[in-house]
Amino acid sequence: TPAAPVDMDEAEEFLRLFHGENPDAGPVEPRIRWVRTEIELTGSYHHTSAELAFGARVAWRNSARCIGRLYWRSLRVRDMRSVHRAADIAEQCVRHLHTAYNGGRLRPVMTVFAPDRPDSPAPLIWNEQLVRYAGYRLSDGSVLGDPRYVDFTTSLIERGWRPPEPKGPFDVLPLLVETPGEGPVLAPVPRDAVAEVPLSHPELPWFAELGLRWHAVPAISNMRMSIGGVSYPTAPFNGWYMGTEIGARNLADHDRYDVLPEVAERLGLDTGGERTLWRDRALVEVNRAVLHSFERHGVTITDHHTESRRFLKHVEKEEKAGRRCPADWSWIVPPMSGALTPVFHRYYDTDHLRPEFVVDDAASE
Amino acid sequence: TPAAPVDMDEAEEFLRLFHGENPDAGPVEPRIRWVRTEIELTGSYHHTSAELAFGARVAWRNSARCIGRLYWRSLRVRDMRSVHRAADIAEQCVRHLHTAYNGGRLRPVMTVFAPDRPDSPAPLIWNEQLVRYAGYRLSDGSVLGDPRYVDFTTSLIERGWRPPEPKGPFDVLPLLVETPGEGPVLAPVPRDAVAEVPLSHPELPWFAELGLRWHAVPAISNMRMSIGGVSYPTAPFNGWYMGTEIGARNLADHDRYDVLPEVAERLGLDTGGERTLWRDRALVEVNRAVLHSFERHGVTITDHHTESRRFLKHVEKEEKAGRRCPADWSWIVPPMSGALTPVFHRYYDTDHLRPEFVVDDAASE
Ligand code: HEM
Ligand code: HEM
Repeated sequence: TPAAPVDMDEAEEFLRLFHGENPDAGPVEPRIRWVRTEIELTGSYHHTSAELAFGARVAWRNSARCIGRLYWRSLRVRDMRSVHRAADIAEQCVRHLHTAYNGGRLRPVMTVFAPDRPDSPAPLIWNEQLVRYAGYRLSDGSVLGDPRYVDFTTSLIERGWRPPEPKGPFDVLPLLVETPGEGPVLAPVPRDAVAEVPLSHPELPWFAELGLRWHAVPAISNMRMSIGGVSYPTAPFNGWYMGTEIGARNLADHDRYDVLPEVAERLGLDTGGERTLWRDRALVEVNRAVLHSFERHGVTITDHHTESRRFLKHVEKEEKAGRRCPADWSWIVPPMSGALTPVFHRYYDTDHLRPEFVVDDAASE
Repeated sequence: TPAAPVDMDEAEEFLRLFHGENPDAGPVEPRIRWVRTEIELTGSYHHTSAELAFGARVAWRNSARCIGRLYWRSLRVRDMRSVHRAADIAEQCVRHLHTAYNGGRLRPVMTVFAPDRPDSPAPLIWNEQLVRYAGYRLSDGSVLGDPRYVDFTTSLIERGWRPPEPKGPFDVLPLLVETPGEGPVLAPVPRDAVAEVPLSHPELPWFAELGLRWHAVPAISNMRMSIGGVSYPTAPFNGWYMGTEIGARNLADHDRYDVLPEVAERLGLDTGGERTLWRDRALVEVNRAVLHSFERHGVTITDHHTESRRFLKHVEKEEKAGRRCPADWSWIVPPMSGALTPVFHRYYDTDHLRPEFVVDDAASE
C-alpha cells in the first residue's frame, strides 16, 4: 500500500528524541528544516543510518509487551533499504538467520527493508516469523504440525509450495515475499539456515522419544516498525527465546502442539480430574526439557525467573535515565508460575511511546 | 466517618436496576419518590431487605477481580444492620463463620452491618479477613507466622491481645471491631469457629511433617460495599477457596509463608540455578497438597482449571442475559499455569458497574 505523506509533527518529535539522546549528532534544527523540505517535496524522508539504528533500538525499548528489553542498546540493525527484489529480500532474511544464530550465541538483530513511501509501497513478508512450522489438516480432521499455520500452509501449497514427503510435524515453511513489481513470491528457507534443538529431558529418557524439537531463533517478520512518521512494514527482528514461549505456549497451547496430555500419560499421571494438577506437572517437565535441551546444544535461551529479574532491572535503569518504561502486565508476566516472578507483584506505566512496533493486519492477513 | 448525603442519581440508578431485574417488586416510580424524600429529610435512605440482598449479589456479580461469580445468585445475605455493639458484631462474625463453613460444605455468605449515615458513622472491622494468622517479628529479624500481618499483630498486642504461648505459625488473630460509641474493641475468635485443614500430600509422606495448615473459610472483612449511593463499610463476605490462593500466594509468596525453598529441599531438587525450575516444581506439589487436603477433610475448594471454565460459562450466561461482565484479566488469570487456563486466552469488558465492592483505605489502615 502506498503511504500517506509523513506527518511532520511525528518526524520532528523523533528527530528531537534522536538528537536529544545523541548529542554527537549535532544541532537538531538544521536537520528538522531539511526533513521538512524533503517531506514537502516527496511526501516522505530518508532516515540516516544512525537515525534508523536508533529508531529501531528505541522501538524495541518501547515495546510494552517485551520482557527482554534490558539489552535494547545491543540490537544490530542491518540496513537493507536498497534491497528490492523478492529473491534478494529472502536471501537477506536467510543471512539474518545466520547472523542472529551466530553458532548458538544468539544476537539480537534486525534487518530493515524499504519503508512505505507515497511513490513506492514497501515489500512485505507474509510469514509471522522467518521460521515457522507447517500445519497440515489430515483426513481425520486432526492436524500434523503447528495448527496455527494450517491456513497459511494451505495458501502456500496453493501458490506452489511442495511440502517435503513424508510430511512431518516440524516442516519449515518457505517465505512468502511480496514486492510491488513481482507480487507474492515463494522462497525456500535453506535447511542450514534453520538451527533447531531436539528436545530431551534432564532426567526422563523417554522424553526424547516424543520427537519434539524447536527452532533456535525467534524472528518476528510481520510487525510494522514506525519511526518518526515513516512506516517500515518489513523489518524482521529477533532476540532469543524465553523458555516459556516454547514450553508453555507453542508446545502446550491446546490450539498449538498440545503436548501436555501425551507428556502426562508418559509421566504416568492421573488425568481423570483436574485436582491432580496433571497439566501443571506436565507443563513444568516440558519447560525443563526446553531449557535443558537449548543449554545442552549451546543455544542461548533464558528462563522466566531470570528474565523477570532482568526486566525489573531494566525498568529501574530506565527510571534512572529519566524515561518512562511502558509495560503491559498481561504480556510481561510469564504464562506459567506468574506469581513466582517478581514482575507479577507490581504495576507498570502504560503510556504509549514512539518509535514503536505495530501489528500490521495487512502483513499478517 | 459520618457520610456525605447520598447521591440521588446513584440511588435512582440502583432502584431502577432492582425493579428492572425484579418485576415482582412492582413499579419503581413510587419507590424513587419515597427514597428522594427520605434522602432530602435525612441525607440517606434505608434499603429494604430485598434491595439489600439484591444489591449485595450484584456487587458480587460486578466484582471484576472475582473468578467465582457463576454462583452470584446463591449468596446468602444476613441483614445485621440493627446490630451496633462491638461484642454483638463480633458474635455475628463468629456465627457467620459457622454458617459459611456448614460442616465443610461451604456456602457463600455475607453479613451486612449498619451503613455509614450522615447522623451515624458505621462500625468498622479492622481485620482484612475474619480469619487471619498472626505474624511475629523474632529477635533474629525473621518472622514467625504470616509476615503480612506483623504490623497488625503488633498493634493488636499493643491494644492488649495476649498471643498464645508458645507462639505458633498459625495463631488466629482476634477481631478488632470499632464502633462510634466504643472505639476499637478486641474480640477473640473462638477456636471452634475456625475450621482449619492440616496439609498433607497425596504421595509425599514428609509433607505433613512441614506442619502447614490453612483455614477453610476466606471471609473478606475490609471491603466497603456501595449500593445505590449507600456505603456499607462492614459487610464481611466469603466464598470458598480456589486452591491457588493458598498454594500459590499465601504459602508461596516470598513475603508471605515462603515455603517453596523448604519444599524444594525436601523434594531433593537442585536449587542452585533457575533452570531446573525448582520453584515451579515445588509450587505444583504445594498446590496438589492443598487440593488434596481440603478434599480429604471434606472442605469445599476449587481448582484453577475447573474455576476458569466455570467463569467463562458465567461470562457467557451474562452475555445471554444482555449484561456486560466486567473482568480484570490480571486478577482473573490464576497466579500459576496462567496460559493453561482458558481465561488467559481472551479479552474482557473492563467497564465499571455498580453496586460494587471498594477497597476502603480507612478500614484497612
Ligand atoms: C533479547 C532477547 C529477547 C527476549 C528474551 C524477549 C522476550 C520476549 C517475550 C517473552 C515476549 C512475549 C512473547 C509472547 O508472549 O508471544 C516478547 C514480545 C515482544 N518483543 Fe521481545 N524479547 C527479546 C528481544 C526482542 C527484540 C530484539 C525486539 C525488537 C527489536 C523485541 C520486541 C518485542 C515485541 C515487539 C514484542 C511483542 C510481540 C507481539 O506483540 O506479538 N524483543 N519478547
Ligand atoms: C464462591 C466461591 C468464590 C470463589 C472460588 C472466588 C474466587 C476468587 C478469587 C480466586 C479471587 C482473587 C483473590 C486474590 O487473588 O487475592 C477473588 C476475588 C474477589 N472476590 Fe471472589 N470468589 C468466591 C466468592 C465470592 C463472594 C461470595 C464474593 C462477594 C460476595 C466475592 C467477591 C470478590 C471480590 C470483591 C474480590 C476482589 C478482592 C480484592 O480486591 O482483594 N467472591 N475471588
